[in-house]
Amino acid sequence: RIDPDRLWDCLMEMAEIGPGIAGGNNRQTLTDDDAKGRAVFQKWCEDAGMTMGVDTMGNMFATRAGEDPEALPVYMGSHLDTQPTGGKYDGVLGVLGGLEVIRTMNDLGLKTKHPIVLTNWTNEEGTRFAPAMLASGVFAGKHGQDWAYDRVDADGKRFGDELQRIGWVGDEKVGDRKMHAMFELHIEQGPILEAENKDVGVVTHGQGLRWIECTVTGKESHTGSTPMSMRKNAGRGLALVTELVHEIAMKNQPNAVGAIGHIDVYPNSRNIIPGKVIFTVDMRTHLLDKLNGMVAEFMERAPKLCEEIETEFSCEIVGQFDPPAFDEGCVGAVREAAEELGYTHMDIVSGAGHDACWINDVAPTAMIMCPCVDGLSHNEAEEISKEWAQAGTDVLLHAVLKTAEI
Amino acid sequence: RIDPDRLWDCLMEMAEIGPGIAGGNNRQTLTDDDAKGRAVFQKWCEDAGMTMGVDTMGNMFATRAGEDPEALPVYMGSHLDTQPTGGKYDGVLGVLGGLEVIRTMNDLGLKTKHPIVLTNWTNEEGTRFAPAMLASGVFAGKHGQDWAYDRVDADGKRFGDELQRIGWVGDEKVGDRKMHAMFELHIEQGPILEAENKDVGVVTHGQGLRWIECTVTGKESHTGSTPMSMRKNAGRGLALVTELVHEIAMKNQPNAVGAIGHIDVYPNSRNIIPGKVIFTVDMRTHLLDKLNGMVAEFMERAPKLCEEIETEFSCEIVGQFDPPAFDEGCVGAVREAAEELGYTHMDIVSGAGHDACWINDVAPTAMIMCPCVDGLSHNEAEEISKEWAQAGTDVLLHAVLKTAEI
Ligand SMILES: NC(=O)NCCC(=O)O
Ligand SMILES: NC(=O)NCCC(=O)O
Repeated sequence: RIDPDRLWDCLMEMAEIGPGIAGGNNRQTLTDDDAKGRAVFQKWCEDAGMTMGVDTMGNMFATRAGEDPEALPVYMGSHLDTQPTGGKYDGVLGVLGGLEVIRTMNDLGLKTKHPIVLTNWTNEEGTRFAPAMLASGVFAGKHGQDWAYDRVDADGKRFGDELQRIGWVGDEKVGDRKMHAMFELHIEQGPILEAENKDVGVVTHGQGLRWIECTVTGKESHTGSTPMSMRKNAGRGLALVTELVHEIAMKNQPNAVGAIGHIDVYPNSRNIIPGKVIFTVDMRTHLLDKLNGMVAEFMERAPKLCEEIETEFSCEIVGQFDPPAFDEGCVGAVREAAEELGYTHMDIVSGAGHDACWINDVAPTAMIMCPCVDGLSHNEAEEISKEWAQAGTDVLLHAVLKTAEI
Repeated sequence: RIDPDRLWDCLMEMAEIGPGIAGGNNRQTLTDDDAKGRAVFQKWCEDAGMTMGVDTMGNMFATRAGEDPEALPVYMGSHLDTQPTGGKYDGVLGVLGGLEVIRTMNDLGLKTKHPIVLTNWTNEEGTRFAPAMLASGVFAGKHGQDWAYDRVDADGKRFGDELQRIGWVGDEKVGDRKMHAMFELHIEQGPILEAENKDVGVVTHGQGLRWIECTVTGKESHTGSTPMSMRKNAGRGLALVTELVHEIAMKNQPNAVGAIGHIDVYPNSRNIIPGKVIFTVDMRTHLLDKLNGMVAEFMERAPKLCEEIETEFSCEIVGQFDPPAFDEGCVGAVREAAEELGYTHMDIVSGAGHDACWINDVAPTAMIMCPCVDGLSHNEAEEISKEWAQAGTDVLLHAVLKTAEI
């Protein structure tokens, strides 16, 4: 079993880097704080006897040698970047839980046939640079690296330039590594495990996602002197589309969600009718047909709604993945580990996207989920208990040991 | 009659300071470009033989001496600050038209009993620092100067600090000046004069205004893993309130307007359900009872709508003025001037707020309106014809001469 206090201290130490304003974290990808977090993580890995490799997307790979030089490594890990108002565990638990696995193996002098590699994937959150899971997506061949480098943040800064600026462009070609298997431990970010009173979630599937960046174009004009009949109010387009997204998600219950998280209004002046609003719709469900149906209905109805109020609607998909089904062998290893350790567990679908969803396409992959209080995540108040962290990390240890052949 | 070419060249020269991105201007109040515009205007006034006074709100007063040392001055003017996506005429015509009046009087060697003062009021637009007409409001005793100094822009910068920074805190006590009368020439910013094919609008009344800054509070959480039933989506609050404002304006037709121009979403991340949205509702009509009724209905229904979707609504009035009725004598002088000059004219209600609306409370005041193409304003494409500019400025000249006693 792992050492829960050591794991917890390690989580709290990382949380000191890039603190938020309400007890959580703001350690967005490719910021100075991201660089600090990476440096600390590298030192911890090296202190644990691992050697660090970095690829050209900034993905970090810390290797603990195996006994068979021919055997492919078993991977584990997640991400250290956070949302602007993020918690201390989303992503971090999977990386530092992996570190705790290595430290425990060192304490016990455990050797494995397969090397074990602990990974920190770059820009999982996708907030600063869409799409989410950008670097694991390039690793899995879903996006070209040049395209990824050209993603820009709200200030117009390029991903490639910012990666360079913080000094984390590595020399390894991205995606060159071959994996025997990959395990990602992550907090659930939803309410199910806590409600069902389970220690651990065995993730069998994930939701598919579509991010649809929409532009409603109206006409900028004076809020006071433009008669109602002459207005082309792009803000009303946003309003109608917000409710459309909600309606579509509701009529696809259960197990479908939809919302708009990101909105920019132009020119955003109290006495100018919005001439343009740009916003991103997030739609998800774990059934591919349903997901495609939701998007099709949206694409058909949104332009009509905007046309009725004399505004124009256009859109573009800026992020997408289909619902993943994880590897039966790896999922089995997780379930067995939980069973053997005596932790209560249940099969679960991941509501969020994860690096594991992309890696699943190029290597046998599974995920372990840890409950979180009130299902709250992407909020600085995100919380887990030390016992939950321990259970998930114990299961990660045992699933990895099984797969890496002790 | 004034010199339309000289006026036009002057307008175009000012438009070179703080250009926009689409042919208009972005010369927001208390920016470096505002300071540049002020310096150029001061030079032009001094070249025309006037002496400049500046008060502690940065209001500029250029005086052309009169013959009777006891006589109170006749004021004219408007504002040189613009919207972020503003036109070349909104405010500027009233200031530079006033300058053209002085230049014409100089050319003709005209002397008046009353001195004539040309004014540039600080922060009329209210975009960077709410409310609009801030400095004329302090002049008229509607706001305290300390309160005005404490207004902050979106970056948290204080009005008082920014006025100091650009070097335009004058030494005159604000509001100390007494006025014989005040005339403001301004573009209509609406479609009526053009549609009615009139050269000049004689402004008898203005619309009253309420700016209601609203906050909808929900709960930040993950767009993917938060079930629909557990969401508190502040973005939906914005959507429902947007449509409520529209509905209230529509049911108070004719002559009532309402919209939301300014919206900030927190934390504004694609995969976080908005936890908070702050936005400003703009409601106007020229009948006080109707205006109060619109606001009362809004205040009653908005919280309920938000409560129904488990979000909280709160609001605060951040800008307001009651519908002004301009001075009969001054309005009469404008109407007579138009008549005598042979310009077609009609009585009109101002859709927008203007410095004249505040000054009307402390001195006999009137406004002259100039048509604008398609009624478009608060848009870089705002346009007027040289003939319209000439007609309005000719009427300003004659109304001022009548009142200042040639
Ligand atoms: N785990 C997580 O929050 N990932 C970000 C991508 C997503 O929005 O699901
Ligand atoms: N004239 C003008 O646009 N003034 C700004 C105040 C308002 O919104 O009416």
